[in-house]
Amino acid sequence: MIVDISHILEFLPCPTPQDWIEEARKPENLSVILVDHANNELKAAQSAMAIMSRYRTGKFDRNKGRSRNDEETGGLQLKPEDQLSLLNKMSRLAREELRHYEQVLAIMARREIPYTHLGAGRYAGQLSTIIRTYEPARLVDTLIMGAFIEARSCERFAALSPWLDDELKKFYQSLLKSESRHFQDYLTLAEVINGSDIGDRVNLFAGIEQDAILSPDQNFRFHSGIPG
Amino acid sequence: MIVDISHILEFLPCPTPQDWIEEARKPENLSVILVDHANNELKAAQSAMAIMSRYRTGKFDRNKGRSRNDEETGGLQLKPEDQLSLLNKMSRLAREELRHYEQVLAIMARREIPYTHLGAGRYAGQLSTIIRTYEPARLVDTLIMGAFIEARSCERFAALSPWLDDELKKFYQSLLKSESRHFQDYLTLAEVINGSDIGDRVNLFAGIEQDAILSPDQNFRFHSGIPG
Repeated sequence: MIVDISHILEFLPCPTPQDWIEEARKPENLSVILVDHANNELKAAQSAMAIMSRYRTGKFDRNKGRSRNDEETGGLQLKPEDQLSLLNKMSRLAREELRHYEQVLAIMARREIPYTHLGAGRYAGQLSTIIRTYEPARLVDTLIMGAFIEARSCERFAALSPWLDDELKKFYQSLLKSESRHFQDYLTLAEVINGSDIGDRVNLFAGIEQDAILSPDQNFRFHSGIPG
Repeated sequence: MIVDISHILEFLPCPTPQDWIEEARKPENLSVILVDHANNELKAAQSAMAIMSRYRTGKFDRNKGRSRNDEETGGLQLKPEDQLSLLNKMSRLAREELRHYEQVLAIMARREIPYTHLGAGRYAGQLSTIIRTYEPARLVDTLIMGAFIEARSCERFAALSPWLDDELKKFYQSLLKSESRHFQDYLTLAEVINGSDIGDRVNLFAGIEQDAILSPDQNFRFHSGIPG
């Protein structure tokens, strides 16, 4: 099955550098790839649920960094259909990420790869530095960041899969479709909630993302930069 | 379909008082029931994922309140098969709770019940006061608390469903089976991780739970005490 990810490649500022792929296909790095992958699936589910928890009543204050779930907010309010769409899409996305988490765990268990502690890479932290602190900008930025993370995951699964054994190749190919759909869900929600073009914000995130991917990075991870 | 919940009724210290049922079946309280139910499903999924996140490497320090995910912990360690079982069960449980969340959202949307802000009741907070602060006792207690919450939810769905309209009756009956399974998963995991009988801890939680259910409670919620 060939999944068309051309829209992902167009969205991302750059493809994964060859140096990262060379590092990632080294057999001694397989356990890092899988443990980090498992952690990322769990974190992706948690991030989606954090959005659900924060914005579940569809209200947020125009000037505050955190939503104010009270009747007197006087701030912005999502349209009921947008709110329902946000909650439903995030919930389904979280469920899918958890299923992938279980799949990675099963692969690790079969290969007797221990689930050791592995600190987070710099990638998500770098992207999050430009999330604005007032609403609804904060939500819009959080969703755009989600789109980048999903898009990069999708691109890396595709870039790495040819170099992996059959089981992992098949698994990573199978993930492309859902990661690509998650990317689209995040982006569409960001546009709808922003209510106007998000091109400027996407460009800003793209600049940070490109730097995270193309600058030297000491910690090898699934979303890390140039090894070294 | 009749689901046998006799083991749930045996586990819980008391049945739901008639006064709570009388309050809960009032049509004006339906929106509170549904909004609180939605919040509870989300919180249940989040709690399961918090356990996954905290204990995912299977290591924790004997004397610390928080797990130390490093190689030099020198503390306790879950057997690989227990760790995998914990992560898998919590992940599946979280996915199921999220699906129920989506189902409650859909019912609310069809009935045009707005997702307003509703603060948490006292129930979970009261139970959590006796969670011990060192490991693995903290994990064991967290799992026992999970068992009580699932058991009480199950018992209340069963107690309330005869008084609801057909759609809700069917929905709440359909939840009994999974809540009952979740209860059993939590309890089994607590026993396995404790490595010895957990009867004393269960009795301690049962005392707190009975008090939360049978004492007067000003905030009407899905898990609240005697209304008034």
